[in-house]
Amino acid sequence: MRIYGNAGSGNCLKVKWCADLLGVPYEWIETDNFAGATRTDDFLAINPAAQVPAVVLADGRTLAQSNAIMLHLAEVAKSPLIPSDLYQRARMYEWLFWEQYSHEPAIAVRRALRHFLRKGDDEIDPELWHKGRRALGRMELQLIGSDFLAGDAFTLADIALVAYTRVAHEGGFDLSDFPAVHAWVHRVEHELGLEPAMEAA
Amino acid sequence: MRIYGNAGSGNCLKVKWCADLLGVPYEWIETDNFAGATRTDDFLAINPAAQVPAVVLADGRTLAQSNAIMLHLAEVAKSPLIPSDLYQRARMYEWLFWEQYSHEPAIAVRRALRHFLRKGDDEIDPELWHKGRRALGRMELQLIGSDFLAGDAFTLADIALVAYTRVAHEGGFDLSDFPAVHAWVHRVEHELGLEPAMEAA
Repeated sequence: MRIYGNAGSGNCLKVKWCADLLGVPYEWIETDNFAGATRTDDFLAINPAAQVPAVVLADGRTLAQSNAIMLHLAEVAKSPLIPSDLYQRARMYEWLFWEQYSHEPAIAVRRALRHFLRKGDDEIDPELWHKGRRALGRMELQLIGSDFLAGDAFTLADIALVAYTRVAHEGGFDLSDFPAVHAWVHRVEHELGLEPAMEAA
Repeated sequence: MRIYGNAGSGNCLKVKWCADLLGVPYEWIETDNFAGATRTDDFLAINPAAQVPAVVLADGRTLAQSNAIMLHLAEVAKSPLIPSDLYQRARMYEWLFWEQYSHEPAIAVRRALRHFLRKGDDEIDPELWHKGRRALGRMELQLIGSDFLAGDAFTLADIALVAYTRVAHEGGFDLSDFPAVHAWVHRVEHELGLEPAMEAA
């Protein structure tokens, strides 16, 4: 498999971590979307939506959207990262869609503006701050009651949500206001074999 | 099952159409998010994310996120709306996630501003126009080559994407620029037994 991704993007790292965990061999092709690398003819032939991550599977077929790629890799591997119980699986889906709609567009976007584009807080739409805190509050409410997002088992939902939550401080969000989320970040980093991105709680 | 939804919202109608198609009995509970009905204590007990649609399943358990609810209903029913081939299924997932990230936030949002909030075109962020047209162009590219989004079979991806595409004209988008999308809208409306939302092509 070839993974086209930007190493600064949580959406891309999700796919890498999932492949690592499942033991799927891959070649990582660093693709700088900020520098226009997703708008070349070659890249658009792989993903006409001009977004990373995108993969070329071992048989040459292409696939895009981080959460779709993770679902596919885990289905092919028959991995317990997808719960076999249909309701637990549905809760995992709920978190995956919520991540792309209500978490990433606030937390990842605010982090990109501050951390990569070096914007000051007064140059950033204040709605991103409120929306990001609402998202972290939603996660806190779940993680007070269960070790992982879809319940007691570690699933793709945790990989998807940890990607930008573990670097939320680079977006100006303080996880000490969300202690269950903070503890969960370390728990998921441990599952993924990652060094902690934040200072210890 | 109880479906909490707003009849003006494509995200909510998706769930209704899917339940109708699968023969899942339900009670529709009209929930006006614009009037604050998703912020009441009763509603937040069902979906702490304060979004419609949300469902209470027959066994009393709750679920949110339109595309997650559709996936769950179709999995329980073992419906061919989810392809059995793993790659076709992955392409369906790709469209479902793309819909929530790249289509709905442009096409549904511009439609809500124009159609429900009666904003003039000059009051609306022009980026929504460009992003919406890019999304329709992405669909056109697929639908020139296949009858449905994930390939030759009608899947949940078509239900998800048709919800706001069939009312894109209410957001100011002219589907005559995207003839394959226009023809597909009528094809999907036929599958769902819906009256055409737009004039005939």
